[in-house]
Amino acid sequence: LKALVVLAHPEPQSFNGALARRAEATLQALGHEVKVTDLYQEKFKGIPDADDFSVRGDPSYLRIDREQTYSRDNGVVPPDVLEQQRLVDEADLLILQFPIWWYSMPAMLKGWAERVFTRGWGYMPGMKYDNGLHAGKLAMVSCTTGTTESTYAPDGIDGDIMALLWPVHNGLLRYAGMDVLTPFISFAPESIGEEGRRATLEAYDQHLASLETLPRLFFHSLDEYGPDLRLLPHVEPRSGFQRRPG
Amino acid sequence: LKALVVLAHPEPQSFNGALARRAEATLQALGHEVKVTDLYQEKFKGIPDADDFSVRGDPSYLRIDREQTYSRDNGVVPPDVLEQQRLVDEADLLILQFPIWWYSMPAMLKGWAERVFTRGWGYMPGMKYDNGLHAGKLAMVSCTTGTTESTYAPDGIDGDIMALLWPVHNGLLRYAGMDVLTPFISFAPESIGEEGRRATLEAYDQHLASLETLPRLFFHSLDEYGPDLRLLPHVEPRSGFQRRPG
Repeated sequence: LKALVVLAHPEPQSFNGALARRAEATLQALGHEVKVTDLYQEKFKGIPDADDFSVRGDPSYLRIDREQTYSRDNGVVPPDVLEQQRLVDEADLLILQFPIWWYSMPAMLKGWAERVFTRGWGYMPGMKYDNGLHAGKLAMVSCTTGTTESTYAPDGIDGDIMALLWPVHNGLLRYAGMDVLTPFISFAPESIGEEGRRATLEAYDQHLASLETLPRLFFHSLDEYGPDLRLLPHVEPRSGFQRRPG
Repeated sequence: LKALVVLAHPEPQSFNGALARRAEATLQALGHEVKVTDLYQEKFKGIPDADDFSVRGDPSYLRIDREQTYSRDNGVVPPDVLEQQRLVDEADLLILQFPIWWYSMPAMLKGWAERVFTRGWGYMPGMKYDNGLHAGKLAMVSCTTGTTESTYAPDGIDGDIMALLWPVHNGLLRYAGMDVLTPFISFAPESIGEEGRRATLEAYDQHLASLETLPRLFFHSLDEYGPDLRLLPHVEPRSGFQRRPG
C-alpha cells in the first residue's frame, strides 16, 4: 500500500523524527511505498486565515468553511493545501506523527487539519463518518508524551490517553470516513534512555508489520444514532468516552 | 477585578467576536477593567518554531521547552510573547473565547498556549496544578459550536463537551494553577436566528454577572495522587473523564 507520514515536530533529530523515519524504512522494507511530509521543515503555513483566500466568495465576512468551498469551486485553493490534499488522496494509509503538547496535537498539526481537511474535500454535508469522503483509507496516530504511561491511565492526572486522542480519532480521521487503527504511543521517550528508545522503535516495527491484524478502533455507525445524533436507547455506548448522561 | 479576553476567531463580526465584545461591555458595566486581545486581528504568530529563539541555548537541537527557559533566563523572549504574558499577569480573570473546530481549540489559540505558557512562566518542574505559577487567578472558557447541544451530550456523536474541554480546563488552565469557572457554551449560534443569538448574549450577561457564585470545576488535589500520579486507591475519580481502569 501507499503510506503518508505527516510529521509535526520542529526538530528532525527528535524521537518524533526518528519514528517518522522508522515508519518510512520499515514500511518500505515491507514492500509499501512511503512519503513523509515534514510540516516544520517545509515551513507549512499552520494557521488558516484570510490570506488563504486570494479570491473571496464573501469579501465582507470571513467564514472559513464557506470560503474553502468557494475556493474549491473556483479553482483557487492555495497550492500548499492542494499539495497536501494530493498526498492524502494518493495514500491508502495516513500516519500522523506528533508529540502531545498541552494534552493534544501541536498547533502546527491542528492547523494542518484546519487548512487541508476543507469543506468539500475533507467532509461535506451528509458525507461524514461512515459516509465520509475518505472511506476506504486507513489512518493511525503515532504520538509521544512528555510523561510516563501511568499519568495517562484512566485514573491518571492527565486522563486516559485514548480519551485525549478522541478529537483526532473520531473528530478528524473517522469524521473523514477513514478506518482508524490502534495508535502507537511512545511514553516519555526522553526519560527511557538509548536502550529504551531502541526497544520502542523495535516495538513500532512490530506495530507496522501487523497493520492487517491491528484492531480498528470501534465507532458506532450512523444508524445507531437518532435524528438528534444521540445514540438510540437500545445502543450501549462504547465508543471513545461516550456514555449515558447522569 | 481585571479581566483579559483572548479571542481566537478570524472574523470580528462573528458570534465569537460578539461574545468577546459583550464580555468587555458587561464586565465594564459591572465595574471591572477589561482588555481584549484579538489574536487574528493582531496577526499573532500562532506556531512556535526556531524563529522564536534568536539566541539559542543549544543551536544543534531544538527543544522548545528548554529554549523557552533559556530565552527567559537570558532576556530574549520574543516581544509578542512577553506582551501576552504581561497581559495575563495583570489579569485576575482570563477568558478564552473561541469556536470549537475539529473538536478542540483553533490552531491559533493552541499555538498561543504553546508560545505564551512557556516553561518558566506558565509552569515549572514541581510548580503545576495546585502549586501552579498562576494560582489565585480565575479562568473561563467561552466557546461556540457548529452543531447542536445534543451532539455534545455524553451519548452524542461528538461526545461530552466537558470531556472535549478537559485538555483546556485541566491541561492548560488548571495546570497553570488557575481556578476554572464553569464554561459558557453557545451551541450552534449560526442555526438559532437573531432572536436566539440575542438570548444567548443575555444568558452570557447573567453568567458574567455571577462570577462569584459560578461553580468552580472540580479537580483532584495533588495529595490525592500517588507517586505515579494515579489517584490513590481510596479516592473516587470524579474529575473530567477520570475513572478506574477496566
